[in-house]
Amino acid sequence: MANQIEKITPRDVNFSQWYTDVVKNAGLMEYGPVKGTMIFKPHGFGIWELIQKFADIEFKKEEVKNVYFPLLIPEKLFKVEKEHIEGFAPELATVTKVGDKELGENLYIRPTSEVLIADFLSREIKSYRDLPIKYNQWANVMRWEKTTRPFLRSSEFLWQEGHTFHASREEAKKMTLDILEIYKYIANEILLLPVIFGKKTEKEKFAGAKETYTIESLMYDGQALQCGTSHYFEDNFSKVFNIKFQNKNQEEENPYSTSWGISTRLIGAIIMTHSDDFGLVLPSKIAPIQISLIAINDFVEVIQTCEKLKSMFELKYRVELDKTDKSFGFKISEAEIKGVPIRIEIGPRDLKNGVATVSRRDLRTKEQVEIEKINDYIEKQISEYDKNLYNKALQHRKNLTFKANTLEEYISIIDKNPGYVLVPFCGEIECETDIKHKTSTNSRCIPSDIEQINSICFNCSKKSSLMVYFARAY
Amino acid sequence: MANQIEKITPRDVNFSQWYTDVVKNAGLMEYGPVKGTMIFKPHGFGIWELIQKFADIEFKKEEVKNVYFPLLIPEKLFKVEKEHIEGFAPELATVTKVGDKELGENLYIRPTSEVLIADFLSREIKSYRDLPIKYNQWANVMRWEKTTRPFLRSSEFLWQEGHTFHASREEAKKMTLDILEIYKYIANEILLLPVIFGKKTEKEKFAGAKETYTIESLMYDGQALQCGTSHYFEDNFSKVFNIKFQNKNQEEENPYSTSWGISTRLIGAIIMTHSDDFGLVLPSKIAPIQISLIAINDFVEVIQTCEKLKSMFELKYRVELDKTDKSFGFKISEAEIKGVPIRIEIGPRDLKNGVATVSRRDLRTKEQVEIEKINDYIEKQISEYDKNLYNKALQHRKNLTFKANTLEEYISIIDKNPGYVLVPFCGEIECETDIKHKTSTNSRCIPSDIEQINSICFNCSKKSSLMVYFARAY
Repeated sequence: MANQIEKITPRDVNFSQWYTDVVKNAGLMEYGPVKGTMIFKPHGFGIWELIQKFADIEFKKEEVKNVYFPLLIPEKLFKVEKEHIEGFAPELATVTKVGDKELGENLYIRPTSEVLIADFLSREIKSYRDLPIKYNQWANVMRWEKTTRPFLRSSEFLWQEGHTFHASREEAKKMTLDILEIYKYIANEILLLPVIFGKKTEKEKFAGAKETYTIESLMYDGQALQCGTSHYFEDNFSKVFNIKFQNKNQEEENPYSTSWGISTRLIGAIIMTHSDDFGLVLPSKIAPIQISLIAINDFVEVIQTCEKLKSMFELKYRVELDKTDKSFGFKISEAEIKGVPIRIEIGPRDLKNGVATVSRRDLRTKEQVEIEKINDYIEKQISEYDKNLYNKALQHRKNLTFKANTLEEYISIIDKNPGYVLVPFCGEIECETDIKHKTSTNSRCIPSDIEQINSICFNCSKKSSLMVYFARAY
Repeated sequence: MANQIEKITPRDVNFSQWYTDVVKNAGLMEYGPVKGTMIFKPHGFGIWELIQKFADIEFKKEEVKNVYFPLLIPEKLFKVEKEHIEGFAPELATVTKVGDKELGENLYIRPTSEVLIADFLSREIKSYRDLPIKYNQWANVMRWEKTTRPFLRSSEFLWQEGHTFHASREEAKKMTLDILEIYKYIANEILLLPVIFGKKTEKEKFAGAKETYTIESLMYDGQALQCGTSHYFEDNFSKVFNIKFQNKNQEEENPYSTSWGISTRLIGAIIMTHSDDFGLVLPSKIAPIQISLIAINDFVEVIQTCEKLKSMFELKYRVELDKTDKSFGFKISEAEIKGVPIRIEIGPRDLKNGVATVSRRDLRTKEQVEIEKINDYIEKQISEYDKNLYNKALQHRKNLTFKANTLEEYISIIDKNPGYVLVPFCGEIECETDIKHKTSTNSRCIPSDIEQINSICFNCSKKSSLMVYFARAY
């Protein structure tokens, strides 16, 4: 178990190894017995539980209702939407028998649930009175991936998938964007990931969608990570699955739908954005342990003071006081490697002086604080801790955000510094395929908050009306 | 959708049809496209979310940590524990290929996760310092059932499975019983199911367990339903999976383990205990909607009063104010069929008199209540509503609980009245198999709160030291 804390490879020496070392040493996960699967250990799952809590509150404000659809999708149902099956076919885990008995038809473990939900709603929706339908499910899905990496890409992952159906284009479009706002809020305010956001290009949008919106985050190594997407389908899925409703004018119409999701991949984004050579660093709001109290010895007075502080802090924070006989040195290392934002050490000498020693995980400084004033002190420190994490990440992103007007400029930037490069782009699928082929990079988004100007495509030199972020990505 | 509320078959005419009618008309579920699977609609999943919330709080008080283990179990791992594989083999949904590619080995969709967790912990546990391990996961599992029934028995269901490992027999045994206490609390206080509880007989205990404890509930039709089980494995799984720890005396020992679970089957228990010929009746604590506000027309003053009441009630309750253009008659039927505990109707005449019309779902009476005093009134009514549901169920159970000393007596009771029958029983597996064969009934539990006396087995006439509840069961 975490009794021996192993060494972590420095981040700048080998980023990929550093990531694996942090993930393992912080006790977030272990590999499952089936290739590409993973076990979420308590500390890793604890982060996901907190992300779920924050996101679920926001979804419920939008009157989204949680549901649960079956794990297995019959082959014939999956085949109804062509782009959809083409996109997922090679990754589908397939149940063919039960016990010794062969089943008559292939059953796919869901890679996503659009078809199940659309099929169900084709029987459920009849009138405009049945709309809007706003469903969400927190579920496991499977996409059999060739190369896997903890949290970022695994055969099975956990996510939420929202699916909504509306009586008008405008309402569905608004839903798509309202969800994007929720995702921005979760990323920026809760996970302290300063995301860029906007529409996906034609090439990068979701199979079957009319428009895909995304939030994208930049990792420490300068590679981008897609952190959440919100799709507007118009009436595509409704038509294909023959979902109809009678509108207020007694006419038959196909409803307009959306889908949207965030996943346990966000845990990977948090790690690769905030953590350091000493282990995990976690935003306070999603840290399963926010304060770790450590008694430097087992004198009664020391333990009593720790217990008293624990009771006080528990009213507002998630606090841990490890009373096992592990050494206090070990407990300190463990708090550090697990990314506990605030560590408070109390020894007999501190007690005599009425103080405690407080360390912030981001700064790794130690401060003597009067126990009388510790409550206010911690509150202030946690708030500054979060600000510091966000600002560091934002600064890092700014440092790694570039502009280019020609392919030559683009390649010279990408070769020197990974990061975002804002370019004028024609938006054509063929042109983007060509860029991917030449540079192993692709578009991340057409940013909503940057002026879109007419120019000349940096790759094909045709007329361009889009300003687009490109990057190497996970 | 729920726009046409269909007729519900009376409960006493055809209990099974009544159950299906309630489940469907209350909008709890629909069947999935794969035989034996089900779709949890918002109202059905909402009940499960609330059960989860209450149970999770209690688990966390016991310092249980949530985790997530993979969905798929390799065949060879599953085969390690013999009784386990024998118990589950015919029900295992098996993944044999991904896309067009055959896999080298069969992968089972988990029917439960003992083997995954034990295998993982065999690498994780080293010292007494690593113990106790207290894991829980909220997950989907599959057991391919021949006959299925919504919530009670479906190929895929949702549950929590707890798995703990301890350094001593005593601690593990205590954990098993502490969880039983939590299950009793959830059943009695939250779901208002007056359960009986105790140990399972040798024949009925879980495959591989040393002891199984259970809570059992009696449905309206007099059949019993197992509602939650807590298993004590001693060091059985630890030995089989070679899990070892160094104890405080530096000796190697196998840890002692438990597992325990409750599932979406509880929703079935709630329905079959509390509901009536008018639809669903839900305990207030797990009712997704606790108060339904209905405006009798769309006069501004009426709507405004409803909105004001909604804002007030929202601070304490889950309230719904349906502002669609459905008729108020329809809205009233819907609140009733969906089991909303309190319905408040407000019309212009009520307003003039400063009153609202309040109905309790259990009594189906209407009362005029001064709006000024409505907050206190509702609080009192909800408390009495819950008491009434519990007491009715308890009375029903008492009416259907019998005693027998001989098989003859036993059969004459079972033939006349289904229900619990307390009998002196030898405890032998062969004898219980014989009883099952003769009567289609089996033991439910050896009650912990009833004196165990020496007597003569009601079936085989050998010496008996157990008093056991038998019943027909779901």
